[in-house]
Amino acid sequence: MREHFHEQLDSVFADLAEICHQVEKAVTLATEALMTGDAAIAEQVISGDIEIDRARERVEETAFSLLSLQQPVAGDLRTVVSALRMVSELERMGDLSVHVAKIARLRVPQVAVPVEIQPTIARMAEVAEDMVRRVAQIILGRDVEAAISLGRDDEVMDQLRRKSFTQLLSEDWPHGVEAAVDIALLGRYYERIADHAVSVANRVVFVVTGHNPSAVRAE
Amino acid sequence: MREHFHEQLDSVFADLAEICHQVEKAVTLATEALMTGDAAIAEQVISGDIEIDRARERVEETAFSLLSLQQPVAGDLRTVVSALRMVSELERMGDLSVHVAKIARLRVPQVAVPVEIQPTIARMAEVAEDMVRRVAQIILGRDVEAAISLGRDDEVMDQLRRKSFTQLLSEDWPHGVEAAVDIALLGRYYERIADHAVSVANRVVFVVTGHNPSAVRAE
Repeated sequence: MREHFHEQLDSVFADLAEICHQVEKAVTLATEALMTGDAAIAEQVISGDIEIDRARERVEETAFSLLSLQQPVAGDLRTVVSALRMVSELERMGDLSVHVAKIARLRVPQVAVPVEIQPTIARMAEVAEDMVRRVAQIILGRDVEAAISLGRDDEVMDQLRRKSFTQLLSEDWPHGVEAAVDIALLGRYYERIADHAVSVANRVVFVVTGHNPSAVRAE
Repeated sequence: MREHFHEQLDSVFADLAEICHQVEKAVTLATEALMTGDAAIAEQVISGDIEIDRARERVEETAFSLLSLQQPVAGDLRTVVSALRMVSELERMGDLSVHVAKIARLRVPQVAVPVEIQPTIARMAEVAEDMVRRVAQIILGRDVEAAISLGRDDEVMDQLRRKSFTQLLSEDWPHGVEAAVDIALLGRYYERIADHAVSVANRVVFVVTGHNPSAVRAE
């Protein structure tokens, strides 16, 4: 019974990692649509989000049936409840990729991001993708050290966001209000993807150690 | 045992409604700070958020101990897990109020929102506050009808957000990029508060009926 329980739990974590891969792909494609003004790629992200929603439902059903039929306690209970929370955050990261894709689609055939700010936005996207990719590994390997080091990348994202604000609020910003608003919102979306990635990684720390990362870091 | 369980569950729901009240107060004060440029009120929201975080921790602890010690199944299990998710959303609504307060603080002694767009932003804030207030009642009364009707208010918020974009993207917007970016982000924050309110209300529908609101509405 217990062994079977842990097998099912492992399969939930494998599903979570698989959803991470889907999110990573969504972030990559949304960014590509954004940088190229390609409507078809934007549509692919927007319509593809249903797959992430369905994967979330499957994880929720399995987690619920584990809680209901196996009535786990202590660490096992913590793990199942954490999985439920992680899958909500991953779904949200998918939604945020859709928001990026929608800004891309709104400006087609133009490109939403002016050339001189493209490196900053592209870097934000890279950091976000890299974090999502690492979260998949963290989930599969229950890797506490990698989870804690992911938190530090959040600072890089904050710096990039501040840089984008400096650029678009400078005296000689020539692209007007619309482009500035797009970039402010895009920055927000990438930042939130990174925040959720950190949060998912923190939940892995909690699952493995029973403590939140701040307590683990202090040890 | 079962009776004691349901008493504890009621007390969890009372705590959730109390957190709603705290969030409502945070939204009200953050908006006041925003419209008046009052730094002290903004600080009050920012430093007061720790109370919401602590209340969330208390609800999580109680919910965990209910799961662990009482091992609920079926509807009871669904209710406890839903409570855990609702409290995450309420905490997030508190964070979003802090984001509003931080924009207010950033522009002190100026007011972030130009006079002619204040009615639109004030209306968004009103809708958000009203939704949060109703969510507290929905939680206390397990009120499925009120929960379903709350979903419709989300449409009002979307309209207000579109209106704000029309204003700040118009040819004769005289307030420059900074004010436009502030308003775009503020609109996003109020919209997200409303989204979370709908999501919490939807979870009440799920708790009471065992179905998601779309299924209940179709009946």
